[in-house]
Amino acid sequence: MTRWKITVEYDGGNFVGWQRQTNGLSVQEAIETAITGFSGEAITLHGAGRTDSGVHAYAMVAHFDLVKKTDAGTVRDALNHHLSTKTASVLTAERVSEDFHARFSAVRRDYLYRILNRRAHSALERGRVWHVARPLNADAMHAAAQHLIGKHDFSSFRAIRCQAKSPVKTLDLLTVSRSGDEIHIAAQARSFLHNQVRILTGTLKLVGEGAWSESQVRDALNARNRAAGGPTAPPDGLYLTQVVY
Amino acid sequence: MTRWKITVEYDGGNFVGWQRQTNGLSVQEAIETAITGFSGEAITLHGAGRTDSGVHAYAMVAHFDLVKKTDAGTVRDALNHHLSTKTASVLTAERVSEDFHARFSAVRRDYLYRILNRRAHSALERGRVWHVARPLNADAMHAAAQHLIGKHDFSSFRAIRCQAKSPVKTLDLLTVSRSGDEIHIAAQARSFLHNQVRILTGTLKLVGEGAWSESQVRDALNARNRAAGGPTAPPDGLYLTQVVY
Repeated sequence: MTRWKITVEYDGGNFVGWQRQTNGLSVQEAIETAITGFSGEAITLHGAGRTDSGVHAYAMVAHFDLVKKTDAGTVRDALNHHLSTKTASVLTAERVSEDFHARFSAVRRDYLYRILNRRAHSALERGRVWHVARPLNADAMHAAAQHLIGKHDFSSFRAIRCQAKSPVKTLDLLTVSRSGDEIHIAAQARSFLHNQVRILTGTLKLVGEGAWSESQVRDALNARNRAAGGPTAPPDGLYLTQVVY
Repeated sequence: MTRWKITVEYDGGNFVGWQRQTNGLSVQEAIETAITGFSGEAITLHGAGRTDSGVHAYAMVAHFDLVKKTDAGTVRDALNHHLSTKTASVLTAERVSEDFHARFSAVRRDYLYRILNRRAHSALERGRVWHVARPLNADAMHAAAQHLIGKHDFSSFRAIRCQAKSPVKTLDLLTVSRSGDEIHIAAQARSFLHNQVRILTGTLKLVGEGAWSESQVRDALNARNRAAGGPTAPPDGLYLTQVVY
């Protein structure tokens, strides 16, 4: 039995999310089917985390076990060959020891949120950015974001349906910067709550348009109540960019 | 009567090309319909050039004349509102003098060709890049490209169906550089022949994979015969990035 770690890119708009569901094709199901098509083995694919429908990944990490003897290049190429949809792609495959776990061994997740901040909607990046027509002040968003760094009860910034046992997480990095017409929000933590980055983004957008002050963001955090946080930004602009082990 | 200059972004994969055709929706028709929807006036939209189906634009320029009195911001917003497809977007509108012509006043066109050069196909950039799995040597491609700079008969690098009167063009810039897994080919000229950038790209790819030498590229140019040039690269990776006046 060999444990394989794979890194996967996908367009979240074409899936019901990472996790297997009955209402449509998930990334997990698409890749599990490809693995079985290649190996003939019924396996379970364990991802580093779950992404919602519409959320993209440049580098989701997952693992699975195979009896079949093969090599890393063959695993990568064969899975891509067997993938029924080309909206997911296996970038790399690596042999790992059997104590590696894509979810539990991860020490950091990195996310990027892209806002297209201009009057005109996006033609080339539709489904890949959140279009906000009103001018946003990225510097003000960045300053407000710094109040959220560290270990906090993030109840105000997690989905009502979040299943995490504790709302306490440590946010290691949250930066906001402008690059031309785009505003990029980068977030790093060991792990995130359900919708945390999208709610943080929706809240910082209120600061960017001048509706909220820095102190209102701090107050929202201290309220520990989802109703006190800002709206949930759409999934389109969110990318899982890296999982660190 | 006011002459309006507009700059348009579009996803070429959703159109039969820039120019009006009977076999499907062109960018020209989509925008002309939006202009008429906004103004009630039957107009003709003149583009800086024609792009084929699948070729993208970050900044195509076009002009049209309106009797209706209005302002630039309204033109941009109203055209975007009236566009039946969101795969095109009017980035800016400007009032110009009546001697401005989107095609004839242009002094330079800039194109970018994106090659994704890695084993795995693209999930997030499919239709937006040319996927080449075999490793390409960008430095060798760049060196070969320099033989094509200047004023030449580019018959070897134009589509058989090209309608330009003369095959002589002056290529001002042709650079090849690597950025991670992508190879970027940038081309600048006053004007290009039909498929010229795509055939140049298809030829340089042969150099990148080691099938052709630098001197074979020079020989192909000197042959002045389409059969001597390399294959036509797919439209997916090609972007009109700027028109200079």
